Amino acid sequence: MELFRRALAAGLLFTAVTTVHADEGMWLFNNPPLKHLKEKHGFSPDAAWLEHVQKSSVRFNSGGSGSFVSPNGLVMTNHHVAADALQKMSTPQKNYLRDGFYATKQADEVKCLDLELNVLQSIEVVTDRVNAAIKPDMSTADAALARRKVIAEIENESKEKTGLRSNVTTLFQGGEYHLYRFKQYTDVRLVFAPEEAIAFYGGDPDNFEFPRYDLDMCFFRAYENDKPVKPEHYLKWSANGAAENELIFVSGHPGRTNRLNTVAELEYLRDRQYPMLMARLNRLEVLYSSWGARSAENARRVRDDLFSVQNSRKARKGGLAGLLDPAIMGRKMAEEKALRAAVAADPKLKDAVDAWDRIAKAVEKQKTLAKESNLLEGGAAFNSQLFGIARTLLRAAAERPKPNGERLPEFRESGLSSLTFQLFSPEPIHDDLEQLKLADALTYAAEQMGADHPVVQKLLAGKSPRDRAAEVILGTKVKDVEFRKKLWEGGQAAVDASSDPMIALAKSIDSEARSLRKTSESEVSEVKQQAYAQIAKAKYAVQGASTYPDATFTLRLAFGLVKGYEEDGKAVPAFTDYAGLYARCKSQENRPPFELPERWFERKTRLDLKTPYNFVATADIIGGNSGSPVINKAGEVVGLIFDGNIQSLVLDFVFDEKQARAVSVDSRGMIEALRKVYDAGPLADELSGKK
Amino acid sequence: MELFRRALAAGLLFTAVTTVHADEGMWLFNNPPLKHLKEKHGFSPDAAWLEHVQKSSVRFNSGGSGSFVSPNGLVMTNHHVAADALQKMSTPQKNYLRDGFYATKQADEVKCLDLELNVLQSIEVVTDRVNAAIKPDMSTADAALARRKVIAEIENESKEKTGLRSNVTTLFQGGEYHLYRFKQYTDVRLVFAPEEAIAFYGGDPDNFEFPRYDLDMCFFRAYENDKPVKPEHYLKWSANGAAENELIFVSGHPGRTNRLNTVAELEYLRDRQYPMLMARLNRLEVLYSSWGARSAENARRVRDDLFSVQNSRKARKGGLAGLLDPAIMGRKMAEEKALRAAVAADPKLKDAVDAWDRIAKAVEKQKTLAKESNLLEGGAAFNSQLFGIARTLLRAAAERPKPNGERLPEFRESGLSSLTFQLFSPEPIHDDLEQLKLADALTYAAEQMGADHPVVQKLLAGKSPRDRAAEVILGTKVKDVEFRKKLWEGGQAAVDASSDPMIALAKSIDSEARSLRKTSESEVSEVKQQAYAQIAKAKYAVQGASTYPDATFTLRLAFGLVKGYEEDGKAVPAFTDYAGLYARCKSQENRPPFELPERWFERKTRLDLKTPYNFVATADIIGGNSGSPVINKAGEVVGLIFDGNIQSLVLDFVFDEKQARAVSVDSRGMIEALRKVYDAGPLADELSGKK
Repeated sequence: MELFRRALAAGLLFTAVTTVHADEGMWLFNNPPLKHLKEKHGFSPDAAWLEHVQKSSVRFNSGGSGSFVSPNGLVMTNHHVAADALQKMSTPQKNYLRDGFYATKQADEVKCLDLELNVLQSIEVVTDRVNAAIKPDMSTADAALARRKVIAEIENESKEKTGLRSNVTTLFQGGEYHLYRFKQYTDVRLVFAPEEAIAFYGGDPDNFEFPRYDLDMCFFRAYENDKPVKPEHYLKWSANGAAENELIFVSGHPGRTNRLNTVAELEYLRDRQYPMLMARLNRLEVLYSSWGARSAENARRVRDDLFSVQNSRKARKGGLAGLLDPAIMGRKMAEEKALRAAVAADPKLKDAVDAWDRIAKAVEKQKTLAKESNLLEGGAAFNSQLFGIARTLLRAAAERPKPNGERLPEFRESGLSSLTFQLFSPEPIHDDLEQLKLADALTYAAEQMGADHPVVQKLLAGKSPRDRAAEVILGTKVKDVEFRKKLWEGGQAAVDASSDPMIALAKSIDSEARSLRKTSESEVSEVKQQAYAQIAKAKYAVQGASTYPDATFTLRLAFGLVKGYEEDGKAVPAFTDYAGLYARCKSQENRPPFELPERWFERKTRLDLKTPYNFVATADIIGGNSGSPVINKAGEVVGLIFDGNIQSLVLDFVFDEKQARAVSVDSRGMIEALRKVYDAGPLADELSGKK
Repeated sequence: MELFRRALAAGLLFTAVTTVHADEGMWLFNNPPLKHLKEKHGFSPDAAWLEHVQKSSVRFNSGGSGSFVSPNGLVMTNHHVAADALQKMSTPQKNYLRDGFYATKQADEVKCLDLELNVLQSIEVVTDRVNAAIKPDMSTADAALARRKVIAEIENESKEKTGLRSNVTTLFQGGEYHLYRFKQYTDVRLVFAPEEAIAFYGGDPDNFEFPRYDLDMCFFRAYENDKPVKPEHYLKWSANGAAENELIFVSGHPGRTNRLNTVAELEYLRDRQYPMLMARLNRLEVLYSSWGARSAENARRVRDDLFSVQNSRKARKGGLAGLLDPAIMGRKMAEEKALRAAVAADPKLKDAVDAWDRIAKAVEKQKTLAKESNLLEGGAAFNSQLFGIARTLLRAAAERPKPNGERLPEFRESGLSSLTFQLFSPEPIHDDLEQLKLADALTYAAEQMGADHPVVQKLLAGKSPRDRAAEVILGTKVKDVEFRKKLWEGGQAAVDASSDPMIALAKSIDSEARSLRKTSESEVSEVKQQAYAQIAKAKYAVQGASTYPDATFTLRLAFGLVKGYEEDGKAVPAFTDYAGLYARCKSQENRPPFELPERWFERKTRLDLKTPYNFVATADIIGGNSGSPVINKAGEVVGLIFDGNIQSLVLDFVFDEKQARAVSVDSRGMIEALRKVYDAGPLADELSGKK
């Protein structure tokens, strides 16, 4: 209550229920903030501008963003978005992730093992058709099934009609449904990567910090029929980069935000989900880093897992700090109270009156399911790639014979080509790391549920976690891609006949896991989706203004100004330069993770040290936006998003443009490094259109 | 049940209830295993031998063991036991912990800020007197108070009579009470420490591993009246060290084991306490290591905290793995079942029949208290030295005016001199690290109890954890030793009048914290103590044999053979040598934590690379034994305990001599390094008695 009054006093309520004035938002390409852009920035992107940017944007299915940046299919992204692919193509002898790579000619470009890129071709609103399938008298279980069916139908129709990957996306937590169609690229080759030491300069300590000095870039080339793709759209390079206070756009795929969540959901995140997640991330960080420290080869094998965990840990820690900040939660409470009051006052909105209470009730149910769901269906009890493969094979056998609309969503026809591309990937899987992870995960399950719990007893089969992990990891054949294909093709009969220990482990708890998922779907997700749909409608009726949905790893347009900020009373300038990089290295005595690759010392005198290197802007981004191009009004690349500053970590819940900033590599800094440090003139020429 | 049958089948039950045949045990000096030593090893240490070893042994109050090793008060321990003292005397300019130190003459020896050493002078059994104070019709709350009173009385009488620090120790979980009298030394000076990089060679990855290559030694000198102590007893040095299969003894202070715990308690440890502790250790490890990585000075400030956490994490992880090993838990269940059957069959033991059930009931109560107790009384919600100081001052004001027997035990007269020695320590306390720790601890409290919990609201006082931590850390004056003294001397009136924010924070939750402690004492500890006393009696009646109590950080005598073991089918030899050190460094490419200090390369050719360096023995030790001398039958130093191998981590619960080993630095390796690498001939001479 105190919080609520403070928020009121601060006038936050007023801004909350009126139109957005800040440069806020992760906007849908089919509903861009044209009015705001025109009124505030005097810029009106037309349909061609939007289509060009949309079709130049690339989604990395491994989790991140990118863009076409040459007529010959060159794709730009971050080194850390590329890390998954770099790790998979590496060996103890050739470490692409750590040491970098440059293909001086196309024939030297290295094919990725399982990298899939998607380019959004069109968006179609299908909300009415989805909602029409849900009848008012349906139970939530029936409604969930009906929803699944109609979505599968829409996707399948689209796929058959267009040949494009077609996915229906839930937006506004259930308020709208849009059909997205993508072109898929699965032959993607590495062109250039810098060394990890400069790409991720400052490592975990500098992650989410600014000033910053990271060359977090990587270039791939998309191929079709063994030839470079000639994309219909690609972004041109800006020779001049961006200037302070210039308007810039970010086109990319923010992964997840929770801004439209009710207070009950936020409290759940704050008191349960984040603490549970943080505890697991801390556990995995210690597990991976202590194992990695044992040898250089261990460090190589676990590098990408460790980075993901550290990155999430730091991001979530910032998010949790936001949820524990009375100013933020007070604002959320004030906004919700105001909206509920407006809804209560309008008889036309009566359907929505108890929507918040229904969500709160669903959250109570969620609390009772969370731990076991997370372990058994979420897979925290089986932190193992081989387990994931085994479960996919097991479930595919059961799901694929079903009518498309009745399958678990991941086995819908619309997703099968991407699924099998991953499932049959020849990526290296290391027994020792798998054993480490699975033994720890089984221990975690025993800790969470109690060692005497019947499910845990079943998982452990009378052995210690370590012995059990060794047994199934060393015994399974699912590490063999041919074996996977046999089980996939052989279906239920092949799976039934298999005595593979990992398949058996997945089988042993599948009914529990599926049942948790089903309960969660009908008693939590479906209840929430219906209630949020009503809230979304009510919000539209009350606030009138056009708005944007929470992030869902679909393409969004953000925008803002290149702009520094103030921190602890000191001005933080918008740009850093190469001189700053060398200064930071010196002040940290060149010790890891502040150590520069040798070539950066050798080539120092060649560099123009005043070249802009990294910069910040107010654009509204979040994890998933990594690798997004930063473009100017002319649609030219002026930078490459790779991070947010520490103050941006609350963007999960609220937008802020006072201190929160998106962090990018400057287009000029990239070219300077390519030419002077990496002798990659041809690549720089291709980017600059000089070829 | 399956477990139980397996254990029976393996014949474990038989060995469990008969006399100990292995070289097991952390024996009391007033009840040494004379019969076993004579029968198995043909050696009969006499009273003089025992007294000599006892009085040469030194307890480090900061947590560890040591011994007098020269007639001039030289004290030997581990570098990692000394780390707390080394850290406190260090500055950004002079890093004793990292860089080591050697005082070539006594005048250069550096006084520790707050290191207290204790030497055990005598043991008196006071079980009957303690038990006589407990009347059968007393409530457990009254019994707990009566126990406290009689213990205070005994301690006070002893202190007045002898002038020695006098502590009554609970042994056999409540089966016996012994009065220990110690000589205290508080003027302790640093003589020699090697660099951390060689003392803790291999760092966390090699911690608890073998083969091993650590020069984990440190030498202090005890002073009285500004002159080196001439101890009545000290250990002579063995020129020849120990040989394979030689009988050796370890005299030191094992901290804690849980071997006599009932199965209900072990299950509680396995399913609740260890998981809770591990989660917190993982959290702190990530917190400290990520903060330490930000700069060299951060790393220096947090070094000792980080080491403690990593060390505990690795030890507890091994312990938990033991509890999750069906073979170990099966053995425990079998032993308990057999003892209960024997008790049930003997009418004389009827008092003990339901002792196990009473413990199980107390454990159920403990479950309901654990989380909040750990946070509020255990201090997990206030991970801050300054908070600890504030709470001590607050409670001292309330406790000291009370009759001695009614005080909280830590404020008994018998402990006040040690308490104030610590409380008024001028050790450096860093605001930045304190803020980091307290903000995290307040976040942890919010996560554990929910941010809306009234206690959490009280702790946070309407602020975010970060802001609240900054407010109290930057605002408190308890960092000033003179201020502490004023509050200590001013008592309740001074504390009441103080508006210090840290004192206020401690005050704000003191009634909750004390109440949790009181409930825990009367409904958990006292119930257990009474039940364990009955089990101990029953056990004695049934098994007859003399035995040893669980470890309690009191002086114990362990013994065993210098002996290698087999691991994954390969023989692990008992000794490593200096050649092995250089080989390990090479195979790890000299990268941290396998990097050798420069002088080790410079002096390599001087060293006899065949000198024994580290070795293993079967002696029964556990954490707290670090720094214990390893001595031969002649009472000479042949080594210095510094670790156990990974297989020894289950020793918390069961002894094993198949693979579990104590790891030591060899006396010959120490002398070789002192003379050839550190030019510390005079110190080597003093140790060798050549002076």
